[in-house]
Amino acid sequence: MTFERTSTHHTVDHDFTAECRAGGDAPALAAAAALLEMGDRLGVVTVIQTGEPFTVAQLAQAADLRETGVAGYCEALESAALIEPVGTDGGTFRAVPDFDVIQHQAGFLSWTMNANRPFVENARDFLNDPDRGTGIDLRDGREVAVSSQWMGSKAFYPAALSALIEVKPAVAVDLGSGTCRLLIEILLALPDSRAVGLDLDHDSCAAARQAGDRAGVSDRLTVFERPIQSIATDPSPLEGADVIHAGFVFHDMFPEEENTAMEVFARCREALRPGGIMALTEAVPYLRNTRERRFSAAVTYFHHQFMKRRLQTEKEWEARLRDAGFSAVEPVELAFPTGRLFLARK
Amino acid sequence: MTFERTSTHHTVDHDFTAECRAGGDAPALAAAAALLEMGDRLGVVTVIQTGEPFTVAQLAQAADLRETGVAGYCEALESAALIEPVGTDGGTFRAVPDFDVIQHQAGFLSWTMNANRPFVENARDFLNDPDRGTGIDLRDGREVAVSSQWMGSKAFYPAALSALIEVKPAVAVDLGSGTCRLLIEILLALPDSRAVGLDLDHDSCAAARQAGDRAGVSDRLTVFERPIQSIATDPSPLEGADVIHAGFVFHDMFPEEENTAMEVFARCREALRPGGIMALTEAVPYLRNTRERRFSAAVTYFHHQFMKRRLQTEKEWEARLRDAGFSAVEPVELAFPTGRLFLARK
Repeated sequence: MTFERTSTHHTVDHDFTAECRAGGDAPALAAAAALLEMGDRLGVVTVIQTGEPFTVAQLAQAADLRETGVAGYCEALESAALIEPVGTDGGTFRAVPDFDVIQHQAGFLSWTMNANRPFVENARDFLNDPDRGTGIDLRDGREVAVSSQWMGSKAFYPAALSALIEVKPAVAVDLGSGTCRLLIEILLALPDSRAVGLDLDHDSCAAARQAGDRAGVSDRLTVFERPIQSIATDPSPLEGADVIHAGFVFHDMFPEEENTAMEVFARCREALRPGGIMALTEAVPYLRNTRERRFSAAVTYFHHQFMKRRLQTEKEWEARLRDAGFSAVEPVELAFPTGRLFLARK
Repeated sequence: MTFERTSTHHTVDHDFTAECRAGGDAPALAAAAALLEMGDRLGVVTVIQTGEPFTVAQLAQAADLRETGVAGYCEALESAALIEPVGTDGGTFRAVPDFDVIQHQAGFLSWTMNANRPFVENARDFLNDPDRGTGIDLRDGREVAVSSQWMGSKAFYPAALSALIEVKPAVAVDLGSGTCRLLIEILLALPDSRAVGLDLDHDSCAAARQAGDRAGVSDRLTVFERPIQSIATDPSPLEGADVIHAGFVFHDMFPEEENTAMEVFARCREALRPGGIMALTEAVPYLRNTRERRFSAAVTYFHHQFMKRRLQTEKEWEARLRDAGFSAVEPVELAFPTGRLFLARK
């Protein structure tokens, strides 16, 4: 029996510091991601992320929730340092200053672990049935979109945006434009420019038009509800473009629609004005550097084994864009691990 | 048009380094957690985590999977630096040296985001229906157990183990003993000791007896398939105990079974030999320090809002153990955020 202690707080005979280090940021990241995902399902994150002060009552009303429930949720967020009190009434809060960074980090957890959860849970079936087709449809489209937006906010979006604004395009086109967030930012930055968005999703196109209205740029924004593949045979939406952007959309066409992708690239090059550029943001497979390798492995494996998509290497994307007639292709490393921005000049 | 570049790799006009920092470890942690969870569902993690070399064929056979599927999974794990090649045949691997640390970190993501996912997805229902009972049963018991084991491996388990071994008990009891991992380690470290495990889960008790056999300690290990609450009226399993451990089991009895919990504490104190200790590992609510606050908030909120459990503060646990007659109660901080080990002396 050696139980003789006097201190009130100590760490028995084991390496407490090493054990804390071993956990790293994982507990805090996981907690933030779970609480923010919950906020997304509750319908309150879009209010909180504005950074404006809000009361529990306002949040409850905005999301059609009971106030007592929202008060408990806000207690948790405040204790987690995701929101902070405003004033002294105890019921008014706003997002903490680094809320955007935390939400960005949460996006990686949310996309990798939850949007792609069907692959994790059905892994045995996929590995044992080589004839099983793509599992893309197993995923919840909304979860994929929300988590991708959180991930992208600081990791690939700013690079593409600054590259496009730098060109000062008279006309900017986005293939796979979603809610046209990128194009609307370009229009707000460049008051003389016009923009054309193209997306096959009806709801995204409707949301894009509404967002254009709210931003006061709808007279300069045209939205086409069409698949990107349609550009191969009807490139009219590209007319007059100085820049054509495509973010994480072309890899979905490999391997089955490789020929179509090449035709779309060719139509893009033909449509661009002299000096114009195509900006392609894409994932490249199985990178080995320390910063990117782990996330790169998950992204690549999800695509190869479960979505049945063949990610193209940096060299392959460069070669394809040159084959389509582009004169120079420049790869740009992104903060988003395993992502590359390819700037292809006409 | 200002698109004039010569370098082959650069980062357009935005703060690449700041954006990489913003992502932090999140992408790598998320990827590791998803790949390891997948390995758990595939049934291969228990083979990999031994640290012994394995071939693709062996792994496939052990988990009843097709070799081509396992080869693809191993390609991903190797690229993610979760396993490493052994030799030059290209088909033999073993876990990387820090596999245990990565698995530990993955446990936090897995528990917080997936084992508790029903709370995230059903948050609206819970917040809008104050009469809704506990959601504990919505969770997958296996996911909770596996992720808890990964989390605990380096964060609370070593502290409890070293505290118990330090006492050199003739008889050690574990209330909520699961697969008796803790007790078996004590028995292996102390060849003259005996141990008694108590758990209400039939499968866990069966697995515990098997594990005792494999470790060659079954003659010194007794397993009772009983709820902890039964100790209040029949404390016979505690007979002769020098130490009684209970890890994250008592909080489940608050608030409804508070009286029973107090009776169990009293029976434990009475049964302990002179100088014996009770070692209670528990979660405490809403801590505010930087290291623990975010994870503490998620753990607390899950318990209060969804599981309808009222976590007891450090002061409350101390008071309860003193009320049960223990003469001294010492709280020990754990690497596991929001966890505390209470060492209560008879």
